[in-house]
Amino acid sequence: MRILILGGDGYLGWPQAIYLSQKGYDVAVFDNLARRHFDLKHGIDSLLPIQSLQRRIERWAELTGKQITKYHGDATDYKALAHAFQEFEPDAVVHFAEQRAAPYSMIDREHAVYTQYNNVIGTLNVLYAIKEFAPSCHLVKLGTMGEYGTPNIDIEEGFIEIEHKGRRDVLPFPKQPGSFYHLSKVHDSHNIMFCCRIWGIRATDLNQGVVYGAETYETALDPELATRFDYDQIYGTALNRFCIQAATGYPLTVYGSGNQTRGYINIKDTVRCIELAIESQPASGEYRVFNQITEWFSINDLAAQVERVGTRMGLSVQREVVSNPRVESENHYYNVVHTRLLDLGLQPHLLDDAELESMIALTLKHRDRIDQRLILPTVNWRKAENEVAMVERIPTPA
Amino acid sequence: MRILILGGDGYLGWPQAIYLSQKGYDVAVFDNLARRHFDLKHGIDSLLPIQSLQRRIERWAELTGKQITKYHGDATDYKALAHAFQEFEPDAVVHFAEQRAAPYSMIDREHAVYTQYNNVIGTLNVLYAIKEFAPSCHLVKLGTMGEYGTPNIDIEEGFIEIEHKGRRDVLPFPKQPGSFYHLSKVHDSHNIMFCCRIWGIRATDLNQGVVYGAETYETALDPELATRFDYDQIYGTALNRFCIQAATGYPLTVYGSGNQTRGYINIKDTVRCIELAIESQPASGEYRVFNQITEWFSINDLAAQVERVGTRMGLSVQREVVSNPRVESENHYYNVVHTRLLDLGLQPHLLDDAELESMIALTLKHRDRIDQRLILPTVNWRKAENEVAMVERIPTPA
Repeated sequence: MRILILGGDGYLGWPQAIYLSQKGYDVAVFDNLARRHFDLKHGIDSLLPIQSLQRRIERWAELTGKQITKYHGDATDYKALAHAFQEFEPDAVVHFAEQRAAPYSMIDREHAVYTQYNNVIGTLNVLYAIKEFAPSCHLVKLGTMGEYGTPNIDIEEGFIEIEHKGRRDVLPFPKQPGSFYHLSKVHDSHNIMFCCRIWGIRATDLNQGVVYGAETYETALDPELATRFDYDQIYGTALNRFCIQAATGYPLTVYGSGNQTRGYINIKDTVRCIELAIESQPASGEYRVFNQITEWFSINDLAAQVERVGTRMGLSVQREVVSNPRVESENHYYNVVHTRLLDLGLQPHLLDDAELESMIALTLKHRDRIDQRLILPTVNWRKAENEVAMVERIPTPA
Repeated sequence: MRILILGGDGYLGWPQAIYLSQKGYDVAVFDNLARRHFDLKHGIDSLLPIQSLQRRIERWAELTGKQITKYHGDATDYKALAHAFQEFEPDAVVHFAEQRAAPYSMIDREHAVYTQYNNVIGTLNVLYAIKEFAPSCHLVKLGTMGEYGTPNIDIEEGFIEIEHKGRRDVLPFPKQPGSFYHLSKVHDSHNIMFCCRIWGIRATDLNQGVVYGAETYETALDPELATRFDYDQIYGTALNRFCIQAATGYPLTVYGSGNQTRGYINIKDTVRCIELAIESQPASGEYRVFNQITEWFSINDLAAQVERVGTRMGLSVQREVVSNPRVESENHYYNVVHTRLLDLGLQPHLLDDAELESMIALTLKHRDRIDQRLILPTVNWRKAENEVAMVERIPTPA
């Protein structure tokens, strides 16, 4: 079975590529290297050193004898995308090729426009490429739990049965996304659902929670297979950032009351979820949504766990409350249905002390690579234009 | 009060401009002339002859002494948009500046991408311009009833109270749009709702039904004030097209079973609805949705009315069932709540024989301008690439 991974050089795309390759799938990656370009532009880097995409693929072949095909291209460039579809003839396409940071989308107008342009038009192109070149290809699309926001009712998996004035229907779950990035995913979801209906495309939309973890079993096989690990205010998600802060003696930065609750998932489960989606292909025309999380925590829950584990490791861990740069409910109901992936066979790696210890230990190993100026949030949702230290600063000699 | 009308040269934008000017508002129009460009490109024209935007504005000043300010610009060009906001300092902005035809968006990938790019990025720019240059300016945005699709429950005005597993919340009404054009409006709605929440923008989203009618009281004052009137398969909406077909002896083209039911509104009510929205400014941060229709009809209802009135006028009116080029339910529930504009004082012009007679009479007057090759639908929702006669044909001498 041939799997084309769009965004196959990223934090999740790369581990996904080698996970599926290991499992015997024929894998190709397609990437525009936008995430690496951001680092180059701002003179920053992943906490874990990562190899070029060429070297990663080469190293994987050296170690396993398995080949991964590489395409350099941008999903908004239909010619490049069409070429990959026509040449590789995928049975499934896993679509990670989107701008994936909420703070990035809130920097200013240019970044908001880039995010929605890149994500919405890229996904439209993917839908057309499937229709034109691979009509039975299964689209596995990364959505986000952030599409739902925090309604005062249970969050269902994509659809909800509504009884209203004596009539009933099963309708798309109402969306209340919290950034221009999250909005772009909502736009994608609507576009995909429509194309399933009119063209008979088969799609799985994975509304993923916040991913944590620095390694999968495959990336841990060799340092040259490492995936990127981000700790900055733009790309560093809460738990990853806390581990890094604990390891470097920087206080854990809690935004506002810290009662904001979100769904989380271990990177080891992410790669498995996508395999489960691929294995259980939807029918022609079917648009299905899985909530890809395994548990949920408030920011304060996470901070407390990192504090406890870090302290046991001999670190001095403090918490610092910072003014919340986002506009979001800090006290809200949160209960998420997430049974569909479990029903398909997912066995979750729940967050435990061993995982936290290993994340903190990995960070300690690379602590000399951390630039603490990148951590504090400066992107404020309330402003149309934000000064981003990492964007502005000119690196100076140490 | 200063009103900036984006798309102020269009079918609705122009009548809106002179309606508000007549009422004493200080009006500016901003337009990229995209709709006229489409006609130029394909060698076609509005059924009613229309003057250039310059001449229209001049004629309006000659007749009434009232000045309308003109900006040539594209909403996706932020510099042009910012200039209009900074110079004109609007108290309200009425946003018609979108690609507005479902069939256009379904021609092929390029037209789908253009539609979503133009509409979504244009509206993002409008939101940023309000935030940056006119934070208390009221955004009056044209949405569409087509955002809702045809759910099996009553359609509420933007939001619905949902009771689910013993809890309740008022949430955005679930959307099931039926074309890339309708999808673009759903994306806009989500983006606008978000900006109201984070930036305190005040917005009214008008989910308008299909508009019919060739004249308002103001456009009828003088032939040089006429607004465009379209009858082709791309821009011609159902009732306008039926009147034209009746007048020219061409059968009324009913798509499929003809039971498809939609909300309709007279162009004379459209201009009044927008005035009502402007007069009743929402609070800072408020995002409100009005369903801008006055009644609903099935395609068969409309065909029967046009048949009856046309026959009485001595015309030979036939119906022709054509295979439905759209993917849509042909038999569905349809009941729409639309009380908010009525509560504000709208007194509807309901569809009656006099209105139909006047539309057919106007068409008879200009029947020599009709090119029947433009009427039959060739844009099929099921195909990724459509041959559009009007796009392909090279005009030949008669």
